[in-house]
Amino acid sequence: MGKLRFQLSVSLDGFVAGPDQSEDNPLGVGGEGLHEWIIKLEAWRKQEGLEGGEVNASTPVVEAVQSNIGAALMGRNMFGGGPGPWSEDDPWNGWWGDNPPFHTPVFVLTHHPREALEMKGGTTFTFVTDGIESALEQARQAARGKDVLVGGGAEVVQQYLATGLVDEFVLHVVPILLGDGERLLENLGELKLEQVRANEAPGVTHIKYQVIK
Amino acid sequence: MGKLRFQLSVSLDGFVAGPDQSEDNPLGVGGEGLHEWIIKLEAWRKQEGLEGGEVNASTPVVEAVQSNIGAALMGRNMFGGGPGPWSEDDPWNGWWGDNPPFHTPVFVLTHHPREALEMKGGTTFTFVTDGIESALEQARQAARGKDVLVGGGAEVVQQYLATGLVDEFVLHVVPILLGDGERLLENLGELKLEQVRANEAPGVTHIKYQVIK
Repeated sequence: MGKLRFQLSVSLDGFVAGPDQSEDNPLGVGGEGLHEWIIKLEAWRKQEGLEGGEVNASTPVVEAVQSNIGAALMGRNMFGGGPGPWSEDDPWNGWWGDNPPFHTPVFVLTHHPREALEMKGGTTFTFVTDGIESALEQARQAARGKDVLVGGGAEVVQQYLATGLVDEFVLHVVPILLGDGERLLENLGELKLEQVRANEAPGVTHIKYQVIK
Repeated sequence: MGKLRFQLSVSLDGFVAGPDQSEDNPLGVGGEGLHEWIIKLEAWRKQEGLEGGEVNASTPVVEAVQSNIGAALMGRNMFGGGPGPWSEDDPWNGWWGDNPPFHTPVFVLTHHPREALEMKGGTTFTFVTDGIESALEQARQAARGKDVLVGGGAEVVQQYLATGLVDEFVLHVVPILLGDGERLLENLGELKLEQVRANEAPGVTHIKYQVIK
């Protein structure tokens, strides 16, 4: 069976988004600083269908996170936000465009049932309304032995962490202080970790952890 | 002029001590896990006057932190705790023993005036009652061009950070979750940081930051 894993950029004071998050500013005040290290990378830009970018010590870390993924899990906000139920009059297919960067089956946690969506490039969105464990089970089946990535948002990652279902994760520790915002590592109960690896890179330190079961 | 710097071990969720700190348990519940990586090191044991210990990837980091220190600053709790004013009937000389591991002038922040204490091995404790900037000025003079180390506790480190007086620091990021306790990186206002270096070591990642002035 593949692993359940995630990666997140986190400020040095522990926030995965700054204060005053809104639909217009989902990363909160200052939160864009969390992703400066990755958006300039060729490895990331390529996956997003963008040209150019640099190769540096973060490259192998990003490539490793992206490899061997058979399916992804995400919350409804990460799929495409919006408060109401899905509507046939408003066929909003998320904010990832026609050819989303996942290229695998994606299971979206939501309270609102909806038919699966098949996108270009191998991404399908399946909407799961019966909880995180059911979504994980479906993702594992779709992944056919490969790993399952929890894409986000942070509150979904936190739910999977708190249940003890996550096997390993990479935190990208960014040298900024956000002061306030959304924390990842709280309300987790008794979770035992082991440090697997740390990588210094320009403007970020990548640390990989394993959850001890 | 030397630098003002500090080092602290911090849990992955950002705590420098666990919950329920007390005089009997100054590190709080689970807090001893923050220092497991260092107490087994020869480099640390030697400074404490202890034999044995191992040499690993943390060794050069600890040696670098300890080198070129001309004076230290600390809060009264770190010197020796206790709630009341100093008393001539109770000549409590702190909990560091006759030969404290500092071997430099140490300036103790307190509200209670007291004569300086000269210990063995080059450590003198000078008690400063007129604030952190005065203490720093005295420490800088005593350091004669070498660096000044803020020894702790965390609330003293936080005060120096918040004033913008700290030049650089090393966080030892330990793979434990304390869930609650004393945070270091909060109430700091607008502090800009630059990552200088990261070192992977057994059971800890050392990250050095510079404060951008």
